[in-house]
Amino acid sequence: MLLTALEFVGLVAFAASGALAAVRARLDVFGVVVVGLTTALGGGVIRDVLLGIHPPTTLRNWSYLAVCAGTALVVFVFHPQVARLRRGVLLADALGLGVFATAGTTIALNAGATVYAACLIGMTTGIGGGAVRDLLLREIPLVLRKEIYAVAALAGSVLVALGHSVQLPEGLVTVVAAAVVVSIRVVALWRHWNAPVARGPE
Amino acid sequence: MLLTALEFVGLVAFAASGALAAVRARLDVFGVVVVGLTTALGGGVIRDVLLGIHPPTTLRNWSYLAVCAGTALVVFVFHPQVARLRRGVLLADALGLGVFATAGTTIALNAGATVYAACLIGMTTGIGGGAVRDLLLREIPLVLRKEIYAVAALAGSVLVALGHSVQLPEGLVTVVAAAVVVSIRVVALWRHWNAPVARGPE
Amino acid sequence: MLLTALEFVGLVAFAASGALAAVRARLDVFGVVVVGLTTALGGGVIRDVLLGIHPPTTLRNWSYLAVCAGTALVVFVFHPQVARLRRGVLLADALGLGVFATAGTTIALNAGATVYAACLIGMTTGIGGGAVRDLLLREIPLVLRKEIYAVAALAGSVLVALGHSVQLPEGLVTVVAAAVVVSIRVVALWRHWNAPVARGPE
Repeated sequence: MLLTALEFVGLVAFAASGALAAVRARLDVFGVVVVGLTTALGGGVIRDVLLGIHPPTTLRNWSYLAVCAGTALVVFVFHPQVARLRRGVLLADALGLGVFATAGTTIALNAGATVYAACLIGMTTGIGGGAVRDLLLREIPLVLRKEIYAVAALAGSVLVALGHSVQLPEGLVTVVAAAVVVSIRVVALWRHWNAPVARGPE
Repeated sequence: MLLTALEFVGLVAFAASGALAAVRARLDVFGVVVVGLTTALGGGVIRDVLLGIHPPTTLRNWSYLAVCAGTALVVFVFHPQVARLRRGVLLADALGLGVFATAGTTIALNAGATVYAACLIGMTTGIGGGAVRDLLLREIPLVLRKEIYAVAALAGSVLVALGHSVQLPEGLVTVVAAAVVVSIRVVALWRHWNAPVARGPE
Repeated sequence: MLLTALEFVGLVAFAASGALAAVRARLDVFGVVVVGLTTALGGGVIRDVLLGIHPPTTLRNWSYLAVCAGTALVVFVFHPQVARLRRGVLLADALGLGVFATAGTTIALNAGATVYAACLIGMTTGIGGGAVRDLLLREIPLVLRKEIYAVAALAGSVLVALGHSVQLPEGLVTVVAAAVVVSIRVVALWRHWNAPVARGPE
């Protein structure tokens, strides 16, 4: 049940991040809802396709869709001062990344995946929605930009897998791991942690 | 059988829309065929992956490929006056959207999906091919542009689900629903129905 | 076992092609690794999703990931003179295309797909990783550019299927077919074989 609550937090965060990005790109209300839905549901659909869960969970329960569409509409109407949108997208994205990467890992472990596969599928769940959002809006995906991104998601997935292997309560582990992901991401953005670029002319 | 016939209409329409868009983007004959194939087969492959049908139906029957490649080649050779290409892409796309969204919903219902999941999967079937086409050609996907698009597909899916729940003949329901989708789309394009954009500076 | 060895050759080639393209796009070390991984593992994940193999093979074995990440890091550190990068990407891509298209066809045949489906899935395995790489880096996918690309992959797939139907040893057939794909692709690049573009103004 905690896992379900966490999933909804992730859905709201990613739906908001997608909707904010779409508002910034000057899309109309339908475009905003479509991008919000795709960002929020995309990671889970990819996860279920990789795990062979048919049809994907997020397409079987109307509450997922309602929450995401509602979030996108709220963002459309009450979007905060435009000057803050860029930061808002990044924060909501960090929250969604943390929740989906860790909840995705837990779900994969429960579905019988090995620890190794569960970490990769969890990371992909976290990264997937945002990558689809950025491709739709023709931005270079966040995951390829300077600050630590995929590594933060991977750290969360590994924490969940560690907790699972020593049989800590999975709800607790997921929450802690998600908080770690969000913290890494926020600090990386705040301190402008940059990874090196290849040397050479051009 | 009517369903199969409808699917071929959708294949031809989407293959033509993809090929026309590729001709406009000045791709060579192979690029035109690849984009035509991807646009026509993409939605069905996504549908079958979501429903867990392996390998996807459209990759099991050579007639699908032959029809799509043939259509793309015909478009390549006899493409209409260039000035009309833009309108041609939009009309063929509307036809493909209607047929695939409604036939996709029927196929999902027959595969045992719930009404709710069938509507979403049907809508995705309709939207999928065109979205892949636009991503490949680096255009902002039609589904995110101003005129009603995903909503038209969703309306068709819901009509099919309604007809299914009161047990009307599925062929008839699919044809009528597809016609409704195409009509909504054409009227939206013709009357320039625009949805509102979020207010605010920037 | 020969098949496994070939798969690793393809992984290294595609990981290098993705990493080189990412270095050219001035991504940082994490971006280079992510693009390298996605390019190398993408085709196999798509193949396994289409064949209904859950979770995908390439996400179950840590050696795949280690080889790809290692290759990407080596490319990042020791990337050859920048002036040669463009050619390097194309050659590594040709090698990956050949190996993945033919090994993918063999794997699909062994998984029970029909000859026809196996050829299409093999071709998609070859094309998939590179297409994802180009979409992530916002380039027009190689598969849509002027020189013979998808046709080369398809030729390799058909050769494998022919060899399979007359029961030649599959390792030998795969190696020969991969060599044919690479040769077609290299000659097409070298001789600038161009396919015709549709006539007409605009």
